[in-house]
Amino acid sequence: MKYCPECAGEVTHTIPEGDNRLRYVCNSCDTIHYHNPKNVVGCLLEWEGKVLLCKRSIEPRYGYWTLPAGFMENGESLQDGAAREAREEAMATAEDLSLFAVYNLPRISQIYIMFHGTLKDGFADVGEESLDVGLFEKAQIPWDELAFPAVTECLQRYYDHHPRSTGWEGRVHTADIHSRPGQPVDIVRHTAT
Amino acid sequence: MKYCPECAGEVTHTIPEGDNRLRYVCNSCDTIHYHNPKNVVGCLLEWEGKVLLCKRSIEPRYGYWTLPAGFMENGESLQDGAAREAREEAMATAEDLSLFAVYNLPRISQIYIMFHGTLKDGFADVGEESLDVGLFEKAQIPWDELAFPAVTECLQRYYDHHPRSTGWEGRVHTADIHSRPGQPVDIVRHTAT
Repeated sequence: MKYCPECAGEVTHTIPEGDNRLRYVCNSCDTIHYHNPKNVVGCLLEWEGKVLLCKRSIEPRYGYWTLPAGFMENGESLQDGAAREAREEAMATAEDLSLFAVYNLPRISQIYIMFHGTLKDGFADVGEESLDVGLFEKAQIPWDELAFPAVTECLQRYYDHHPRSTGWEGRVHTADIHSRPGQPVDIVRHTAT
Repeated sequence: MKYCPECAGEVTHTIPEGDNRLRYVCNSCDTIHYHNPKNVVGCLLEWEGKVLLCKRSIEPRYGYWTLPAGFMENGESLQDGAAREAREEAMATAEDLSLFAVYNLPRISQIYIMFHGTLKDGFADVGEESLDVGLFEKAQIPWDELAFPAVTECLQRYYDHHPRSTGWEGRVHTADIHSRPGQPVDIVRHTAT
């Protein structure tokens, strides 16, 4: 940020009085411009024991497989956002969504909020942002071609603890995911395995 | 937003090509400026069966009682943000935080993400943004003087289902909270009562 979105004045990166963090402050109108983490919302949809994955047609991670997920929009709920991503990426209808996992990605100031649900009628087709979509059994998951560490973690936890199995209904996985492109991923899980 | 934060050019509120939502787009450099929901992170800390509340010294809702909570900052985890708010508002140290509730407030594009934990040593004192702090038993909770519907909902669910009681360990409450100042609050709970 170089200029104030309200008055076009130049901004300074400084700690405002009474604050303890660097903010962009307008030199002309004194407005403080806050920046906050963004939520990525998505879903793990199953149908007859298989899981819906999408092959990305956009960067980053073009050509890699992902669960339907993307940035949450203003005015929607987390669940509505997750369902919208399934619709946009895989022409899919998400049913019976329940909260499944919440992951912190502090380096890039993102939170992944993932739901579990059912793929209505088992139907999916290639949507915008996808090259391909498919329903995968556990043995078919392309583990080496998954787009993001949060997707891998979500799928692994799903196979470890099915969200509708006894003792896990309603439980939510939480973790910190520390990753940089080309480096090993470090995952700190908060919930008992 | 009236001006581009990158080049100070005027922006137009329009639907960019290939998109389906109104965005602020710079007339000069074509940058699309996205706006996304903000997370409010907070915690319900208990000590010997009592709950920590803070009386707000700032607007909105000056003088009303709240659980420690505030906007999540870039670079931190949800849990770190919740602990920071307890420190800032009540000089309190949060221990053993676990995810307790996730509330959608779509009208104002906010998500409340609330944790349950222990108040270390039972110690709290008036912090910045608070007029008073206190530990309350259930019968003492000032229900008519709570600051926000999400705080009321969180406290009610806590008393209905203690997060460490049998069958509720690790479960997370989720709901949509629809409220406008001066109007009745409408809460749609997703999880079974």
